[in-house]
Amino acid sequence: MRKTAIIGIGQTKVDEHWDKSLREVGGEAAFAALQDAGMDKVEALYVGNMLSPMIDAQNQLGAFFSDWIGLWKQESVKVEAACASGAAALRAALMAVASGDTDSALVLGVEKMTDKAGHDVTSALATAADADYEGEQGISFVGINALIMRRYMHEFGWKHTDFAPFSINAHANAMHNPYARLHQKINEDQFERSSMIATPINLLDASPIGDGAAAVIVVPADRVASVKGRPRIIVAGSASATDTIAVHSRKDPLFLSAAYESAKRAYALAGVSPEDIDVFELHDAFSIMAALSLEACGFAERGQGVRLGLDGEIGPNGRLPVCTRGGLKARGHPVGATGIYQIVEVVQQLRGECGRTQVDGAAIGMAQNIGGSGATILTHILKAE
Amino acid sequence: MRKTAIIGIGQTKVDEHWDKSLREVGGEAAFAALQDAGMDKVEALYVGNMLSPMIDAQNQLGAFFSDWIGLWKQESVKVEAACASGAAALRAALMAVASGDTDSALVLGVEKMTDKAGHDVTSALATAADADYEGEQGISFVGINALIMRRYMHEFGWKHTDFAPFSINAHANAMHNPYARLHQKINEDQFERSSMIATPINLLDASPIGDGAAAVIVVPADRVASVKGRPRIIVAGSASATDTIAVHSRKDPLFLSAAYESAKRAYALAGVSPEDIDVFELHDAFSIMAALSLEACGFAERGQGVRLGLDGEIGPNGRLPVCTRGGLKARGHPVGATGIYQIVEVVQQLRGECGRTQVDGAAIGMAQNIGGSGATILTHILKAE
Repeated sequence: MRKTAIIGIGQTKVDEHWDKSLREVGGEAAFAALQDAGMDKVEALYVGNMLSPMIDAQNQLGAFFSDWIGLWKQESVKVEAACASGAAALRAALMAVASGDTDSALVLGVEKMTDKAGHDVTSALATAADADYEGEQGISFVGINALIMRRYMHEFGWKHTDFAPFSINAHANAMHNPYARLHQKINEDQFERSSMIATPINLLDASPIGDGAAAVIVVPADRVASVKGRPRIIVAGSASATDTIAVHSRKDPLFLSAAYESAKRAYALAGVSPEDIDVFELHDAFSIMAALSLEACGFAERGQGVRLGLDGEIGPNGRLPVCTRGGLKARGHPVGATGIYQIVEVVQQLRGECGRTQVDGAAIGMAQNIGGSGATILTHILKAE
Repeated sequence: MRKTAIIGIGQTKVDEHWDKSLREVGGEAAFAALQDAGMDKVEALYVGNMLSPMIDAQNQLGAFFSDWIGLWKQESVKVEAACASGAAALRAALMAVASGDTDSALVLGVEKMTDKAGHDVTSALATAADADYEGEQGISFVGINALIMRRYMHEFGWKHTDFAPFSINAHANAMHNPYARLHQKINEDQFERSSMIATPINLLDASPIGDGAAAVIVVPADRVASVKGRPRIIVAGSASATDTIAVHSRKDPLFLSAAYESAKRAYALAGVSPEDIDVFELHDAFSIMAALSLEACGFAERGQGVRLGLDGEIGPNGRLPVCTRGGLKARGHPVGATGIYQIVEVVQQLRGECGRTQVDGAAIGMAQNIGGSGATILTHILKAE
């Protein structure tokens, strides 16, 4: 199996891009990644996207974007795993390059969600859940997460305020990320007084949707040199795991077993332990997911995920910096693109390009992308060499 | 790059399965493939599907089916490339196994289309076309193919009747395939008098939609022995290529350049030429597509694809047997499943399991799966050893 490396990154600001079409939003990130890599062509394109069949009446995004980007004749395909579509597309590209079949691949995560507001998007997001046994009951995606959060608070005795550090950290970090959707510092008081969405989840527990795209370029590691100021970024670990699609089918709805499994495999592949991770871009779609992710990946004991935030350990200078560019909460969550934004952000950290939120000496970074309520979870570990 | 082999196949009858849910239809094929391979577990699941977000309100089919099949913890993902989703999912699995990352993969093509008839499905299928420049005009998928067929007839001087052999052959072969949707022989007179859909395409030029699922199991070739009566089936060539998504953007709308590219690469990988192919499961979604596919893959000169049928060369005993189990035309076209049905059928031919439509001494088989109006095309070549 060939070692793989990431040599180019690109992204668009997460925003309401009403003046740009799906192809323009995606193209912007793809061209930026190609330019960053100093390439004008790749052998294959992998697109991560969840909603375009429903929101944009557009399927076959592989051919759609290879056409727009000018990759005619090349291989291209779309990969979908709900909100984990981005990382799933990356993993498909990694396999193709690792196998020796493909020598260069562009991975594009893209989502255009804000042209149709309200019910359309809420219904479309609910397709990540089990249509027969969850969606059929009329529950929305935030509703499912609210049930999980409520149970967690009950089981482990935490108050809603205890989740505040996740959102406060994300918003503070996003202030220094020009690509973030929200540039607005928040405090604990604002967190507590925010509008309720599905109790106990309020607006500041939840990540905002948005239009956005992020892209990376994957090549065999032996084709990349490590140059001063720009280390070689190796994909040291990549793993994907699944859990039951419906939350009620899980023995323990408060344990992300697919996060545990995929992190365990990624650690083993990379030859590292949780304590070796310098920066962790986790999937804080809702604040409860940040806590559960930290626990499943071995950064906190069961039921103690919120403590890392309360102890001040998740900031850029903390023991485990998370969401250093704003996370889903403040960078924004254009669902199928999110997994690639996370990879782009880890690469930025490993390159030392993060300015005010740079983690000193970051050499090993991890990204975790969650689909549905934990049904598909991918973990990637990158190393700077 | 590890060589790969297919060791298990399974399929459901293409039909109106109103008594079965999406998970039941897919599970049936998946369990059949596992049983055929003598396995009860695989490391990863790849699902090919196009329409379920729109028709079944279900995304994240990877986790959805790994849950149903009992592959909790395992990797799983959905791959989409419109009507080429099945072959695209196979190719993703091949890359994972070829890389050495994964030792066994189940590939499931599945589609449930008939619960919602009419406009819903027609609109959903149109998402394979360019939403901004084709779909926006209101043209349906059959409409696009009708324009291509009309142009072909004009350009090369063929009559509608000249396409009859494709449909007649497909219907005749399906008579001997219990999994086929249509069991009804047709003749040239019926072909000509059939109801018009979008002139010049009538009902007997077009493949029927349907509910269906097909599955195969991929493993490293060195784990499979060739036993008497059941040869080892090697994936000798796999390639994917794209063309512009909108037909009007092509220099030549009558040439499937992605078929040409992917076939060329697959031939090179397999070390074969068109004349070495013993059986060809081609993508006859419409009779015009059969002609164009034959031309682009080197079996006929430009504009002469229909001649193979007129010369009686496409039957099981002909020079190039096509659609030996009924093809899309009569086996049926449950879109995201079709590419895997084709692979299953080629394996059946190479194993010698096709009874009345068995191609004598079939040792090298090819399958070609087309997404949209030729925008994504995958070609696979299998060899019996």
